Amino acid sequence: MTTDHDAIRRHFESFAAALHAKDVERVMAHYAPNALAFDLAPPLQHRRDEIERGLRDWFATWTTPIASETRDLTITADGGVAFAHSLNHMKGQRTDGTTTDVWFRATVCLRKLAGAWKIAHEHTSVPFYMDGSVRAAIDLHP
Amino acid sequence: MTTDHDAIRRHFESFAAALHAKDVERVMAHYAPNALAFDLAPPLQHRRDEIERGLRDWFATWTTPIASETRDLTITADGGVAFAHSLNHMKGQRTDGTTTDVWFRATVCLRKLAGAWKIAHEHTSVPFYMDGSVRAAIDLHP
Repeated sequence: MTTDHDAIRRHFESFAAALHAKDVERVMAHYAPNALAFDLAPPLQHRRDEIERGLRDWFATWTTPIASETRDLTITADGGVAFAHSLNHMKGQRTDGTTTDVWFRATVCLRKLAGAWKIAHEHTSVPFYMDGSVRAAIDLHP
Repeated sequence: MTTDHDAIRRHFESFAAALHAKDVERVMAHYAPNALAFDLAPPLQHRRDEIERGLRDWFATWTTPIASETRDLTITADGGVAFAHSLNHMKGQRTDGTTTDVWFRATVCLRKLAGAWKIAHEHTSVPFYMDGSVRAAIDLHP
């Protein structure tokens, strides 16, 4: 159990390092072949090839490395299935001159495939204000 | 495995029926003691007592039953841990005279506790438009 938790923690550290480096191949190595993502950006869901294409386009919009911080990471694993959730902080400069500085929720569901934990499903989001504005809540802090 | 999948499917059917009836106690019976939700509405996360309080307030804003439809439900289970994801459609009339008719993403992470599957973590959301509007994408269809 501890070994699985440690392996999954290392998986997330490795993922964050690949994201920081904006290295598409290294990020994609963390996903299972049939991965499905519910992403911050539309559409409702992204299949593996769409995740990869989305990453390439998205990485090109950053002028700095993508800094990320994870809070309240909780991991639950048994056998070959695990899930984890956390609050993530993403920060950096964009090509359009804006600064991205946002807290979002991340749920990551993993499968152990050939001895290695891979992301089968991930869900990242912010909530939205129910005050009639239907504005995404990109200004929340934990 | 099939038994677990069947039990989890029944769990979701039972959950949808309780939601349709706006029955707080019956909905809450599906959650584990330490459940944590990333909900459509702020804040970033809701602990079990906040989920329950939120449901009471939210149910009071519906004049009709809450109709829900689930598409692309995928369940992965091993041992005492499972995760499921789907696209959900929610529809009904609200006390402020508006109609709710929205597709959202649902990721549900479960633990088998005393032989029964319970929701340890759930994450529901819509993506948001990255066109500068920061508008929640409540108008998407699968």
